[in-house]
Amino acid sequence: MISNQEWQSLLAPRSVAVIGASNNPGSWGGRLMRHLLAPDNRPIYPVNPGSSEIMGVTSYASILDIPEPVDMAAIVVRAELVPAVLKECIQKKVNSALIISGGFRETGEEGARREEEILEIAREGGIRFIGPNTMGHLDTSSQLNTLSFIAEMPPGPVALIAQSGNMGTRIIQNAHRYGMGFSKFVCSGNEASIYLEDYLEYFAQDPETKVIMLYIEGLRDARRFFELAKRITPEKPIVALKSGGTKGSTRASRSHVGALTGSDEVYTAAFKQTGVIRVSDDDELCDVTIALLNQPLPRGRKVGILTMGGGLGVVAAEACENEGLEIAELESSTIEKLNALLPARWSHGNPVDLVGSDVAHSAEIISTLWILLEDKNLDAVISNAWLGRINRDPRLGRIFTSTDTPKESDEEYTRKFFQQVSQYGIPLLMVGGHPFTENDLASYILFHKEGFLIYPQPQHAAKTLRQLNWYRQYLESISND
Amino acid sequence: MISNQEWQSLLAPRSVAVIGASNNPGSWGGRLMRHLLAPDNRPIYPVNPGSSEIMGVTSYASILDIPEPVDMAAIVVRAELVPAVLKECIQKKVNSALIISGGFRETGEEGARREEEILEIAREGGIRFIGPNTMGHLDTSSQLNTLSFIAEMPPGPVALIAQSGNMGTRIIQNAHRYGMGFSKFVCSGNEASIYLEDYLEYFAQDPETKVIMLYIEGLRDARRFFELAKRITPEKPIVALKSGGTKGSTRASRSHVGALTGSDEVYTAAFKQTGVIRVSDDDELCDVTIALLNQPLPRGRKVGILTMGGGLGVVAAEACENEGLEIAELESSTIEKLNALLPARWSHGNPVDLVGSDVAHSAEIISTLWILLEDKNLDAVISNAWLGRINRDPRLGRIFTSTDTPKESDEEYTRKFFQQVSQYGIPLLMVGGHPFTENDLASYILFHKEGFLIYPQPQHAAKTLRQLNWYRQYLESISND
Repeated sequence: MISNQEWQSLLAPRSVAVIGASNNPGSWGGRLMRHLLAPDNRPIYPVNPGSSEIMGVTSYASILDIPEPVDMAAIVVRAELVPAVLKECIQKKVNSALIISGGFRETGEEGARREEEILEIAREGGIRFIGPNTMGHLDTSSQLNTLSFIAEMPPGPVALIAQSGNMGTRIIQNAHRYGMGFSKFVCSGNEASIYLEDYLEYFAQDPETKVIMLYIEGLRDARRFFELAKRITPEKPIVALKSGGTKGSTRASRSHVGALTGSDEVYTAAFKQTGVIRVSDDDELCDVTIALLNQPLPRGRKVGILTMGGGLGVVAAEACENEGLEIAELESSTIEKLNALLPARWSHGNPVDLVGSDVAHSAEIISTLWILLEDKNLDAVISNAWLGRINRDPRLGRIFTSTDTPKESDEEYTRKFFQQVSQYGIPLLMVGGHPFTENDLASYILFHKEGFLIYPQPQHAAKTLRQLNWYRQYLESISND
Repeated sequence: MISNQEWQSLLAPRSVAVIGASNNPGSWGGRLMRHLLAPDNRPIYPVNPGSSEIMGVTSYASILDIPEPVDMAAIVVRAELVPAVLKECIQKKVNSALIISGGFRETGEEGARREEEILEIAREGGIRFIGPNTMGHLDTSSQLNTLSFIAEMPPGPVALIAQSGNMGTRIIQNAHRYGMGFSKFVCSGNEASIYLEDYLEYFAQDPETKVIMLYIEGLRDARRFFELAKRITPEKPIVALKSGGTKGSTRASRSHVGALTGSDEVYTAAFKQTGVIRVSDDDELCDVTIALLNQPLPRGRKVGILTMGGGLGVVAAEACENEGLEIAELESSTIEKLNALLPARWSHGNPVDLVGSDVAHSAEIISTLWILLEDKNLDAVISNAWLGRINRDPRLGRIFTSTDTPKESDEEYTRKFFQQVSQYGIPLLMVGGHPFTENDLASYILFHKEGFLIYPQPQHAAKTLRQLNWYRQYLESISND
């Protein structure tokens, strides 16, 4: 069990020594220094025997030369040097360490012995460390950033634990497109001293974290993981991308983080029993997480589809049915309301097809959306008639079209629109194309900021609804026990 | 059988009358006029009883008032008016028609009767027509564009036949992101007079068309389709997205194009027997098409993976194995060459993991790529170490990094790079993240212009390789018969 004091030292250190700091802005030690110095909120002490000053800060030949106390040590030297450096850190009485250096268990037997050695040194010294072979970590509330590859990250309600630095990067960059912010992010590396399970336990009780995302290749302590998951998921959703389940990928994972992967079927079963939402790639990881953060869980499998044209409606209906969802009959009152509102050529059923562009650019489209969200036969709505194409809503005022550039008033409008949507208490998932102009990107970001994704494919929206529905059923099943 | 003369009239008319033309630039009749007038290469005659001039061109109350001969009539009036208008077109001796108007079979019994009526009128008059209920068509070599929603389209080697205007639009817009150009594009609409099978047969012998993409909801003449496909696919690949295979989507399709969908299993089997490559969404439609255009077919299932870091290698290996591909052993000579080239920490196997950023920004990465492409144990290479991250190649000179803006010299470099790649005779599929800055988009477009996609997920690259390999096996199986 890691104490709260130790977590404080790891995630919100009072001071940090960077062993292997560099003036070279392109090197790991240089980027790390830059990102640590940026918030200017704690003393950063560069350590490098070859320099007296690094990025304007006095540098020391050894951590032992630093006159002030050091809370955490960040180590970026060659693997062979790490044991000696770690001993000095302990002599200096640091409270924790981050070992970015690679060259340990992931490289074979010699590296494994070296990993045992540093673990022994840390144990004797009574400290824990992140890594080795990690790309670093991030805590937005303490403004700590030891990542070399991401300079800035907005705070937010998601924590990510990744057993891979470059998958972590992909996920973070993807999430950034969606306007998602993070409370904490750890690349757990080889997990010699601190396991994924430890981070999970701590982030579960972090009030800033509402959803936990995981990238897993193999668990050190699977039993503990699933005990924790069972305790956490009723309160806080866990969304997991697990890879390394096939022969060649297992082999690749061994030489990566030295992880012991297990049978994929065992993982699938255990995730299912403990309420962990398992996704199939990092797109779905973000798709599901942002829906969990911003949408209510659907009451059931019945979906209403609003479409600007037939083909997309057909594709969306098929995607839903392939995911075990149901294209429900509309209430007769819905049909009546739509008959009164829409030109006669509308599809008179679900999917609600508005047929073409005359309606597309009018206010009817949004009124149709309200009518569908009110339908008691529907548990969720998927719409490809998204807002970028709507001129205005009679209730809410104007909104930009896809040919306008979003303005401040559009942000205001978007906020009001989604407040209105949330009144109905069922999920609304919107589908658009891939953004392919600056303007597309800008309008997508506007929606994403409000927590509403524009899913690039109906299949993504359908999968997300299936996952939300599965999670709702899991929660019901445990509350009935 | 449609004569060549009729196809000329439909795809390269000498003159066009627009019945229902409008001065309103936002209306269908307005956009259609604008797109028809743009190339200024054939007489366009607006017809509208309410105007004497439309967009600077003399307008007529009826097609019968036009003093010159009219080759094709494009009709955008209300459904009720179409029979009378079509009769006048025949009286005027047009050679073909395009009926954009909706309100026919897709709307129910009355519409179906109206569709029979116009078909009868056309038959008696001896002409054929596209539609009704279509969004129009496009021929880049004759510079004909009757689409209201796309103003410009670069010429290219792909023909698309879509049984849905808005799915056609999605596909075209997606393809545009990939730098793909089109020879011909038809929204086939209700297919009263001209069937998908007719377009397929004609496009198959079009020298400008190298690959045919299809969006299918239901075939009017499935037997003929599969006979044609069997004849076409040995020469020209057909890539098909078929939807409407589930209960609710079948219902939706009926009210869309009035199509008779069939059992999905029957389609799957028939596609398989006739060499049609079936994809699961419009992303994959473009993924596979652009690979068919620009990559050799793989000799077999053995894949080499080049990765910048472990996690992505694990995910890519798993994706390949899930698609039935094999993570092959490298030749011992490859291992030796890489040992001589790379720092000791490389993964010493497949996936070839370069481990981190020091190598990432050096020339070694591209030398590694050449070594893998030379390995006789590999049938294809997937690389997430894509060019945007490479500074320079010792053989070819410099290339931009992801932080530079592409310049003309980069285009030159990119071309040389891909010429070099093509020497090796095996497919190279590159994986990147989703582009999320203007600069990302610009560099992606540079690669896409050369016909090399940056696949957003390793899964997409793996699926594409599976499809190419399946097609190669199909071609081998029929040449053995």
